[in-house]
This record gives sequence, structure tokens and C-alpha cells, in this order.
Amino acid sequence: MSNPLFSTHEQLLKDAVAAIEKRTYWSAFPEIPSGKIYGETANENGKAAFESRLHQPYPLTLPSTVGQTGSERSPYGFALEISYPKVDLDPLLKTVLAAQKQWRAADPETWAGVSLEILQRLNRRSFEMAYAVMHTTGQGFMMAFQAGGPHAQDRGLEAVAYAWTELNHVPKTAYWEKPQGKNEPLKLNKQFKVVPRGIGLVIGCSTFPTWNAYPGLFANLATGNAVIVKPHPSAILPLALTVEIARQVLAEAGFDQNIVTLVAHEPDNDTPQKLALRPEIKIVDFTGSTKNGEWLERQARQATVYTEKAGVNQVVIDSTNDFAGMVKNLAFSVSLYSGQMCTAPQNFYIPKNGVETADGHLSFDQVVQGLVDSLNKLLGDPGRAVEILGAIQSDATLDRLESARKLGKLVCDTKTVAHSQFPDAAVRTPLVVQLAASDHDYYLQECFGPIVFVIPVDTAEQALELARMTSLRCGSLTFAVYSTKESVLNAAGEIAAEAGVSLSCNLTGGVYVNQSAAFSDYHGTGANPAANASLTDSAFVANRFRIIETRIPV
Amino acid sequence: MSNPLFSTHEQLLKDAVAAIEKRTYWSAFPEIPSGKIYGETANENGKAAFESRLHQPYPLTLPSTVGQTGSERSPYGFALEISYPKVDLDPLLKTVLAAQKQWRAADPETWAGVSLEILQRLNRRSFEMAYAVMHTTGQGFMMAFQAGGPHAQDRGLEAVAYAWTELNHVPKTAYWEKPQGKNEPLKLNKQFKVVPRGIGLVIGCSTFPTWNAYPGLFANLATGNAVIVKPHPSAILPLALTVEIARQVLAEAGFDQNIVTLVAHEPDNDTPQKLALRPEIKIVDFTGSTKNGEWLERQARQATVYTEKAGVNQVVIDSTNDFAGMVKNLAFSVSLYSGQMCTAPQNFYIPKNGVETADGHLSFDQVVQGLVDSLNKLLGDPGRAVEILGAIQSDATLDRLESARKLGKLVCDTKTVAHSQFPDAAVRTPLVVQLAASDHDYYLQECFGPIVFVIPVDTAEQALELARMTSLRCGSLTFAVYSTKESVLNAAGEIAAEAGVSLSCNLTGGVYVNQSAAFSDYHGTGANPAANASLTDSAFVANRFRIIETRIPV
Repeated sequence: MSNPLFSTHEQLLKDAVAAIEKRTYWSAFPEIPSGKIYGETANENGKAAFESRLHQPYPLTLPSTVGQTGSERSPYGFALEISYPKVDLDPLLKTVLAAQKQWRAADPETWAGVSLEILQRLNRRSFEMAYAVMHTTGQGFMMAFQAGGPHAQDRGLEAVAYAWTELNHVPKTAYWEKPQGKNEPLKLNKQFKVVPRGIGLVIGCSTFPTWNAYPGLFANLATGNAVIVKPHPSAILPLALTVEIARQVLAEAGFDQNIVTLVAHEPDNDTPQKLALRPEIKIVDFTGSTKNGEWLERQARQATVYTEKAGVNQVVIDSTNDFAGMVKNLAFSVSLYSGQMCTAPQNFYIPKNGVETADGHLSFDQVVQGLVDSLNKLLGDPGRAVEILGAIQSDATLDRLESARKLGKLVCDTKTVAHSQFPDAAVRTPLVVQLAASDHDYYLQECFGPIVFVIPVDTAEQALELARMTSLRCGSLTFAVYSTKESVLNAAGEIAAEAGVSLSCNLTGGVYVNQSAAFSDYHGTGANPAANASLTDSAFVANRFRIIETRIPV
Repeated sequence: MSNPLFSTHEQLLKDAVAAIEKRTYWSAFPEIPSGKIYGETANENGKAAFESRLHQPYPLTLPSTVGQTGSERSPYGFALEISYPKVDLDPLLKTVLAAQKQWRAADPETWAGVSLEILQRLNRRSFEMAYAVMHTTGQGFMMAFQAGGPHAQDRGLEAVAYAWTELNHVPKTAYWEKPQGKNEPLKLNKQFKVVPRGIGLVIGCSTFPTWNAYPGLFANLATGNAVIVKPHPSAILPLALTVEIARQVLAEAGFDQNIVTLVAHEPDNDTPQKLALRPEIKIVDFTGSTKNGEWLERQARQATVYTEKAGVNQVVIDSTNDFAGMVKNLAFSVSLYSGQMCTAPQNFYIPKNGVETADGHLSFDQVVQGLVDSLNKLLGDPGRAVEILGAIQSDATLDRLESARKLGKLVCDTKTVAHSQFPDAAVRTPLVVQLAASDHDYYLQECFGPIVFVIPVDTAEQALELARMTSLRCGSLTFAVYSTKESVLNAAGEIAAEAGVSLSCNLTGGVYVNQSAAFSDYHGTGANPAANASLTDSAFVANRFRIIETRIPV
């Protein structure tokens, strides 16, 4: 008997399945932080709920608790002073294994129904989540609401839809009758049981704690796996809230709430490594550094490991019909959340002889100046600037920004922007540095943060070749090309396919290269070093379960 | 423009896709080696074609050939004396990379159409293939025909159907329009390009060179990957024939025939290791020993690795309504191809106090004697025995058989059977040795060949627990249980799910535990150490390609 939550959410699931098959525009969770949608007092209530969490232990009861941990600081300049249960891994894993047996025994309908109920509850808490994400990641409020709330929920739903689609390819039973000429046919009844892999470990990152964690979290739940969520020490709150809601829904649905647990830990200790190598962990979903991601891929041999790591995103500017639209679009792309997005562009290849535009030829310097002017215009008003830029999430990014100033010609220095509401917030405008095409040591690596390298090249062909080589060597999640020539766009398409990177052509309006829409855009491809999997395709879910067959003669 | 071969075979593909969704009985390629189906002279022609290959170089022209290799011996007692092109890996890989670009540029319809044409041509050569398989593996003719020909072709077709299903979840284009309230909606055209991983390496085994290789081979081709086939040095001929046909079809379809190549090599050299670690190899499909399979999983980090390794298959006898049917069924299962099947049962757990049958209680010794009597009856006539047993494929198996005689109480010794047509064939009847439940050193490992261990246990529960522990530790592909009690069958079902092994209950008729039917039975589960993947499910194909997106504003 399936859980009644399945019928409650069946239409939503059907709509989501239809959406992933078409990949046109679709969204289940409204992205506008409007009182008309979320309730007139939703913002105040969410803010109050966030504030009520501060300066005290988080009200989450976990098994095998041996203390408290937590030292999050808001990038807007204050300590959250929230502590979370600290768990002892040995007994925790025993408890989760026991809970996992119960979840395994449920059916795909129940896995989907419970997953969708969790997503619906998360949606209702989107304002509270927005403040939690804002004050752990440094995102501006609007982005924290959208990327931390409805967009992350959409990504979770998308994973459930893929899981459901794959599970539905497996018939539950089959009657097999093989003719034997004149003799009686052979007859068997067959049962095909979907068996989850075991326990999935979801390792969250510091910049998009929910958006990057929900695909793995919900892909696991929807295929019957228990989930241990290990947040980044600087962004625990959004995932603690997620785990709290998941546990409430599980308990209400009659399940052991330890099917979803949280392992918070101090910065720089070896909890993640210890956990990831445990034999009980059969799946790992990771977002973070290349170093940690590659370590997991190499060492966590007992598990199937999905990683999103660092990458270098690139822009090739060859020519354009809309120079103003181009620089406006690019200025926003590099400014949004201070470039602290795995999809933000870093390397800009521009012909040293300049580019053709609808308004005539522009020199290299004019193109760069156009970009700088556009940045200044976009970020000229501090009130608006802080909403776009958010705050710098970590001191490492501030250090990186400072070092990058010395790498080449300083085209546009980074500036500090005063935040009227949070005077201690670390708000910085993007830095633009001009390098040479030969400066491989500098631009063939991810410089995470508001750092833009403009690189003069001989020709568009050289630009494309540099982009190809960089993507294959360093990995890339996004690639933007501006050209009015079919031949250049086609060549970029070839290179994108070879380097396994998503391509955006001539974005000049309200779509930005760093944005990735659930149900339509694949995030990451698994085809270059930036990620070994895509969010979300069939490959992301198909390995999270096995099929065990039973044959019984009729 | 898709290749016209797609429309030629479109109905076959549709039927295969329908079959994998239902997993009832279906087969595309007739398994009866009948002149009425394959042509009145098909057998003579096939035999003549096989014989015409002997004692000379195989007529296959490969790029980068630097010599000849090949030292196959028929297990029926003669040397084939066929030599094959020996290739230089460095230039070969360059050539294959170039060919791969052309294949990548084709579309899913073309990949499927060409794959299906290869399968159809292989089907027409099934008699020739039967002799090639018989005289490399030692299989009896009927099995060599079925498992080497139509059943292998069905497994290949099944992989194409799974690949096609997964590729069809990816829309080729999408128009994305996102509402913006009162403003103009955002509008993008999106293209989703399926991009294969690169070059797939398919490593064949010595006992089922085609059956175990075709799923990986055709899953790769159908997802746009080039394929290098590396046969086992003792079973090159069946895969040389396969590669020859594939190259003919590719050339006729206007493609570079180096999309499929063969790397034959001397026994015990390091060609497989060298090849498997090449950066150009992105997928490895392997069937063989646990040692080599685990080495690949650990070392071939640049590739996605699918392995089928050793396992210990088990039978639990608790009680039966049809003792005669049970022992007849089991006797055949252990005799077929002298137990040289990865699915053949090895460990038989039988209560020391005996079992209940429809004819009353039988003691442990009576149960074992029943099995021995059934073996003697099945194999009493040498003419019939040699057809069932085939010949022992390798000297290592003969040595293992000899050693196993000394492991415990010799219940039924192995006997040599004279083959009237091939006096030098190594034909042996199964050995039955009684061990103790404590003899873990002996029965917790695969003893490949006609070796049966009967193991007295206290209770059915102990038997099931031993089976569980053995499967989890050593891996298993099959698990058979005989019981008239619901409770025992249910407990076996639980254990099968936990240990990730396919379960067969009370097989007493013409279906045997070691048989696995394409389009219905999953072969291997990926959920225990015997295999990290299943033939064939979505997970087997979904990781063989990536999706690269392009976004262009409207």
C-alpha cells in the first residue's frame, strides 16, 4: 500500500515528468517573493523565524548526539551563534542503517509522495529559507529567496521526476511464457523489486547550500535511499532547516525520521573524509573544490560519487549587433553575487584588433571600456549595488581578489561598497584585469569571486581554441559566445560539444550565462573536469537503485 | 539526415523497446538451429565457413598492423592455427579517435540503424558463429549456437533498445518562454546535443565471448561511441567475426570502418592493461576474473568501468513437492557446459536432518544421492553427455577440478567422457564434494567449472544466512531456493534483496537457474561483488553519453 501522500502530489509529479521530457519553460514553485503568493505576512514571519533561531541551539534532535557545534558568521557582518547537534558517527550510522531498511521496504510511489510533501513544505518556508541562505552565503535577498528557495525546490522536484521516470521503466511483475513448439510452453511469474543502494551522503557547499544539495538529496529519497546531509561548516542553517522539515514529514507519514539526518562539524576537521569512506555510504553527492572532489572520486571506492568541482567559465567576443546589450548583460553576469557562482564567467577573450558592432568597429580597449562603463552604471548606486553583489562569503575570496589585482594590467579595480543596513558586510565590485594570452599560469585556474580577466587574442579562432583547451584542462560549466557570424557560432558549437560545456550565444537581454533553469537547462554535463555528472539527467538517477528479480514457475 | 538503415529496422527497434518495458517473453532472433529458419544449407555453409578460416591469417585488415598474433586451441582438441592482425596501440588510437569524430556527428537514429543492421547480419551468420564459439569455448554445439548467436544478438538488441529509450528522453530542441509579468517574456531557443563519451573498450571473456561482449559493444555503438574490442586470447575468432561484420556494415553505410576495431594479443602480456589506462578510453566493459575486474575499477579512473567478475552461486534446499523434478533440474544446471557459466550453482545447502518431500522425509544422504543419481542418468549416454557438458575450456579448470576432489568427502567423482567425434576433447562430468558448514576457506570462493559442494546445515535459516553472507562477501549472480513454505521463500526474497542477487524459486521444469533470457531477466544486479552493473538496465546505458546544450535568444 502506497502512502496517501502520493495521490496528494500525483498531478504535480505528472506535470514535472512532462516538463523534463519537453524541457520548455516550467516551474512548480513561484520565484517572486510576493505576499500575494506566499501570504501577506510571509516576509515578516520568515524574517522573525530566522531571527528567532539566532544565538541559541537549533531545535533539532538527532540520534547519537554527543555535543554541539556551529560557528556560522553572516557575510553581512555578524555571528549567527547557532549551535547544532554534533553526532557520533558510529552509532549514527547504525541508526540510519536501521531506518534505511524501513524506507527500502516502501515503494516508489511512497518515496515520491514523501519527497514531494517535503518540497511543498520547504516551499511554504521560502522566506525563512531566504534569510537563512542570505546570512550564510552572502547572497542578496532576492537571489537568496529564489536560488535558495523555489529554484532549489524546482531542482529537487526535477530530480524526483527523473527518479520516477527511471523507476517506471521497471515493471513490477511480468508473466513470461516461452513457446516450446508442440510441447507445453515454459511459464514463469517474475517480480522485479527496486532496491536502493543504501545510504546517500550529500555534501553541501558554502555558496548554494540548498540549490546544489537538493538534486542529490531528492534523487536519493525518491529512489529509496536514506540520506545523511553534511553541510559546509559556514552554511549549516539552510540544510538544518531542510533536514528538520524532512524529518517532520517522514515522522508524520509514519516513517523513522532518521531516514534523513544531519552531520554538522567544525571547520577543517576530518568528519567529511571519515564519513565519505564508511562502507555504509553507497552514494556521495558533492559540490565544492576540485581538490576535495577528486579526493572523493579517488578514495570513496565503495560509493558511486557525483561531483561538481571548480571550473573556468569563458566568454568569446567576436562581433555583435548589440554592443550595449552585450556589455550590460555581461556586467550583470560578473556582478551577480560577486561572481561567487560556479557558472560566472571569468576569462573574456577579445580580438586585439577589436570587434565589429552594429555601430561600427570598436578597438580592444573600447570593448573593455564598454564593459567597465556598464559595470560602473550597474553598480553606481550603492543601494542597488549591494542587492546585486551581495557580500563576499569567505576571507579566502577577499584574499584571492587582492592577489588578482597584481596579475596584470588593472583595468578596473575592485571597490568597497557601503551597505546601509549592514555596515560590516564585505561588499566588493568586480575586478577587471588584463592578461596576455600567454599567461596560462593565471587564467588556467578558477579564481572564484568577482574577478574578470580580459585577454587579447589574435583572432576569434585563437579565442575558441583557448576556450576549448581551458575547458578540457580546467573544466567549465558555462561558455558564452558573441558573434554575428554563422561560422564562428558553429565553430563554438563544435568546441562546446568537444569540451562538454553548455553554450550560450549572443545573450544581450534578461537571460544571463550564469543562470540555469530547472526543467530546461542541464547544469553541468559530466563531460569535462568541472563535474562528473549533470543536474539532472537520467545518468544522475539511474545508478541510485538496483533491480532484484525473483522467478517462480507458474 | 538519418541513415536509411533506421527506417529499415525501425519496427524491430519499436518491438524491442516495448519488450524491455514489459519484460514478458520476447525474442527477435530465432534460437532453433533449424534449416527451415536459417536456410536449408545454413549448417553446412556455416561449418564450411568456419573450417575455411582454420590454419591461416584471418582476412581482417586493420589500421596500424605490425604483425600477426593468435594461438587459439579448440577445447575439442585441436589448434585453430588462425592468426589475426596485431596492432600498434599508439597509431591505432589516433585512427580510432578520428573515426569517432565522424560517428559522434551522426544522430541517434543512425547509431541505432547501423547497430541493428550489424545484429541482423550477425544473425544470418549464426551457424558460422556457432562453430567459432564451440571451438574456442568448448560449448556443445546447441549452446554455442544459441548463446553465441541468437541469444547474444538478443542481448545486443536489448542494449540498443535501452540506449534508444534513454536518448529519447532528451528532446533535440526546446522553445523556452518565461513570463515576465507585464513585460515581454524571455525567449530562448535551446538545442540539446547528445555527445558520446569517446572510445569504449570491450574486454571479452573466454567462455561467452559474444554473449557477454554484445551488451557493452552495442550500448556503445548505439550511443555514438567508437568501440575497440579486445577478445580473450583463447576466444578471438567469435569477436573477430563480429568486428569484421560491424566494419562491413559501417563501410556500406558510408562510415569510417575504424569506428569498430579489434585488438588481439598474446596470452599473458600487458596489452589489456596498457589499453585500459589510455586517456582516449572513456568506457570499459569487462567480463572476467575478480582480480582483473577490480584492477580495472581501481586503476582505469579516466573511464566509466562496467565489470562482471567471479561469484559464488548457491542453492538452498529446504523442502519440495517434486523431488524428482528438483534433482533433474539441478543436475542439468550443474552439467550444462560443465558448470563453466558465471550463473552455474556451486554451493548446495541441505539440512543435515534431511528435507520433506511429497513422497515423505528424505535424509541428507538421500537428497545428495538423488542429485547424484540424476547426474548419472542425465550423463549416462556419452553421446548425449558430450552435447550437454561440452569440453573444459582451460587447463586451469582441469587443475581446479582435480584439486577440489581433495577438499572434502568425495560424493561423486568427476569422470572423463569419450567424445566419438573429437577424441582429444577434455569432457568431464561434475564432481560432487561434501564439505562442512565451517569450511569457509573452500566454499567462500568461486571454483569455476563442474564442481558442486554439498554442505549440511542445521536449519533452513542457517542455509539462508550462509547464502546471504556468501553473496555479500564473494558476490553471486544467481540464487535458487527450494521450499514448500511461504516463510522460507519470503525470507529468501528478503535475503536476495539485501545481497543483491537474482532469486529463482522451486525450478523443477525446463527453466534452469543458470539461464538468463534477454528482454526479461536482468543478468547481474550491480548490487554485490559479482558485478558492478546489470545487463541490461537504464544504468548500463545512461552514463555512455552526455548532453550538451546551446541557448540562443529568439
